[in-house]
Amino acid sequence: MTRAFNFCAGPAALPTEVLEQARDEMLDWQGRGISVMETSHRNPEFMAVAAQAEQDLRDLLAIPDNYRVLFMQGGATAQFATVPLNLLGKRMSADYLDTGHWSSKAIKEASRYCQVNVAGSSADANYTTVPDASRWRLSTDAAYVHYTPNETIGGLAFVDIPDTGDVPLVADMSSSILSEPLDISRFGLIYAGAQKNIGPAGITLVIVREDLMGFASDACPSLQNYQLVSDNDSMLNTPPTFAWYLSGLVFQWLKRQGGLKAIQALNQRKAGKLYAAIDGSDFYSNPIETAYRSIMNVPFRLADDALNSTFLSESADAGLLNLKGHRVVGGMRASIYNAVPEAAVDALVAFMADFERRYG
Amino acid sequence: MTRAFNFCAGPAALPTEVLEQARDEMLDWQGRGISVMETSHRNPEFMAVAAQAEQDLRDLLAIPDNYRVLFMQGGATAQFATVPLNLLGKRMSADYLDTGHWSSKAIKEASRYCQVNVAGSSADANYTTVPDASRWRLSTDAAYVHYTPNETIGGLAFVDIPDTGDVPLVADMSSSILSEPLDISRFGLIYAGAQKNIGPAGITLVIVREDLMGFASDACPSLQNYQLVSDNDSMLNTPPTFAWYLSGLVFQWLKRQGGLKAIQALNQRKAGKLYAAIDGSDFYSNPIETAYRSIMNVPFRLADDALNSTFLSESADAGLLNLKGHRVVGGMRASIYNAVPEAAVDALVAFMADFERRYG
Repeated sequence: MTRAFNFCAGPAALPTEVLEQARDEMLDWQGRGISVMETSHRNPEFMAVAAQAEQDLRDLLAIPDNYRVLFMQGGATAQFATVPLNLLGKRMSADYLDTGHWSSKAIKEASRYCQVNVAGSSADANYTTVPDASRWRLSTDAAYVHYTPNETIGGLAFVDIPDTGDVPLVADMSSSILSEPLDISRFGLIYAGAQKNIGPAGITLVIVREDLMGFASDACPSLQNYQLVSDNDSMLNTPPTFAWYLSGLVFQWLKRQGGLKAIQALNQRKAGKLYAAIDGSDFYSNPIETAYRSIMNVPFRLADDALNSTFLSESADAGLLNLKGHRVVGGMRASIYNAVPEAAVDALVAFMADFERRYG
Repeated sequence: MTRAFNFCAGPAALPTEVLEQARDEMLDWQGRGISVMETSHRNPEFMAVAAQAEQDLRDLLAIPDNYRVLFMQGGATAQFATVPLNLLGKRMSADYLDTGHWSSKAIKEASRYCQVNVAGSSADANYTTVPDASRWRLSTDAAYVHYTPNETIGGLAFVDIPDTGDVPLVADMSSSILSEPLDISRFGLIYAGAQKNIGPAGITLVIVREDLMGFASDACPSLQNYQLVSDNDSMLNTPPTFAWYLSGLVFQWLKRQGGLKAIQALNQRKAGKLYAAIDGSDFYSNPIETAYRSIMNVPFRLADDALNSTFLSESADAGLLNLKGHRVVGGMRASIYNAVPEAAVDALVAFMADFERRYG
């Protein structure tokens, strides 16, 4: 069995070591004759798995004590509603930065619950850059400021964490969390669907500053009330236990890789190689302003869109999977999350050069 | 490796064959060199898995064409809010039958969204029976009638499907779905957390009559709007793909067992053996009125609670796991879902007799 090089944007590649452990324990976990997914979440052995996963995450991200870690369900899309349902309190509006597909989705859902002030947007630039912070129109009475540090589809990333003063900063980090060290104290709340850098689809990470909880609206379903979820250690009801377990294995794998500084260096090297291949060619192109290029999601186009299907079929035959770009932007996209090895990038770069030589 | 006999109430035992297939495909699914959990939900190969799971479920339950099958997240607890958020429409109240822990939880959450009329309750009988249908106080203007056909903790089950006339009947079937054939046409909506008879925790099944969709309240998060979820084939956002895949394997396993009539006969035989062992002894007891005993969850008490910890440790040593009863009712509970083999019940009955002989 040969593992393919998998550039899927999500659900994305997981570390082979993690899948091997899950496979080996699938029918007999901890020598108990059952799978980890076949026991109560309140069983002491599972509670230990859950607690260890949280501790490893806290270690990796150096999460301060005044932040709670919640394991929820529903992905980022659920959080698009959960955030305003919890954080508005008595306020009527929130500020959002619009930098692409996912921030637009967050804005649309939030608009159902409050007045959304789009404080900055790069829509006019076709989302190829991050709007200039000096021109943001932040409100003084916003309940929070929301942004998307890494746009998975556009391949656009913020360089700096926005300074929002006393207004809590909320970030959808679905496609960038754990890719590099992070100063959690700059944020009011961070959320992330698991299926890129955390684990399988079906579990959602929320990191929330304690003082922001307790203000859920009357309409908020109990399962989406951060305070209730926190008070019940993310076990207000049965959590997705297998996804939680797998996420814990990924956190342990990340520690074995040397933590987030080491993975950041690797991610920068991987992205650097791929962008160099794109920029060093007239055949491939990436439209994003250089300073704001994502190190996780690298969209690129061929000089001739008529070659797209050939590129996709030949790359798949070469063991390079899931390179098709999102329909919104077209072309190709290589998502190179933590679990995508440098060898995958090397193989892709070599394939791209060979493809250009033959078809360019 | 020996598989233990696992009586967990949930997350519960899964068929060994299903776990073996998942293990064998864990790193190399369909010969593609990736796991099924490492690919996009919109990938044609995964879409086929998702569609096949729905079709197999439709076959098993003979789901009529005017019902939609939704794969959601959040378990039954999420549905406690999702049901009123979707089904109330312009109505202000709903009828609920109160038969134990889980129906009470559903009532509590629904009360946050509407006037709940408790149309019948067996609370006065300590939930050992089902309230007499002739005494239910059903409203004429209720948006729906909600009940819990099988109370997982109490071990109490309805015999008949309630007749609610033109008012849609809503059922929390988390612990009874797929245990026997079911006339879906009697229901407006059925929901079930997966972690008993469907698959791993983290996916939630909803079967809803088409004409009941489209009336979600303004406050309903998009991801909990049945109409939106249905319009997007349960892929409004990334679904829990691995849980969906595993659920599909369970459906295929159920078909191989002969479908729901065959599994019903097996379930009745398993439950019959266990209740016979309890009733044939002065040492063990079950408080539920005989006609309303669950064939899925069998709580029982020892004559002396001081022996509980000895029973639990010795049974675990004998490979009989997770027999501790819920704290609400105490004592023991054997959950004997579809995936718990008859041999497990035979071993438990033999252990119980031996235990009584030594300690009774």
